[in-house]
Amino acid sequence: MIAKTPEPPYYAVIFTTVLSDDIKGYAEMSDRMVEFVKMQEGFLGYESAREEIGITISYWDSLESIAKWRNHSEHTIAREKGISRWYSSFKTRVCKVERDNGFVKEV
Amino acid sequence: MIAKTPEPPYYAVIFTTVLSDDIKGYAEMSDRMVEFVKMQEGFLGYESAREEIGITISYWDSLESIAKWRNHSEHTIAREKGISRWYSSFKTRVCKVERDNGFVKEV
Repeated sequence: MIAKTPEPPYYAVIFTTVLSDDIKGYAEMSDRMVEFVKMQEGFLGYESAREEIGITISYWDSLESIAKWRNHSEHTIAREKGISRWYSSFKTRVCKVERDNGFVKEV
Repeated sequence: MIAKTPEPPYYAVIFTTVLSDDIKGYAEMSDRMVEFVKMQEGFLGYESAREEIGITISYWDSLESIAKWRNHSEHTIAREKGISRWYSSFKTRVCKVERDNGFVKEV
């Protein structure tokens, strides 16, 4: 689903990953993180797809909300496991969304 | 591949799409756009994945470079076909990347 975000400005965290060969427990953690992030203050939505690389973008009302999610205890544990085990490489980019446009076709 | 981008700040265009049932010609156009965008001045790299939704992120040195790509004649034709035919919905978000971090594991 394309995230229904408010009028800009707001923030986006682009999280790009390549998985390692050892992905035991990864899917369960990923599902748990989705449940947790939805409860975070200032969370506006997310978009995700994986082929050769995985891209997950979360949208936020402020840098403060992003920092709180970064310091969330379960998220910290997941991130450390990701770095030590699940990801062979990753990149996180924190961005300010300055403008947007788009459409949803009527069916 | 995770894009090798320079030190922030730089710009990202997040392009999120849901395909319609009519995707004749879509894959060819998509491949052509990749070839064209790589030749654009100020283009820094891109990342792409599709499952339920497609996410393509292109990275740029400036808003001016993004505007030039937006006005590129072949890109304009592709965008119009996308809107009229290939996409059932899409969203484009223009962002300033303020900071990033990541790692590539040594193999």
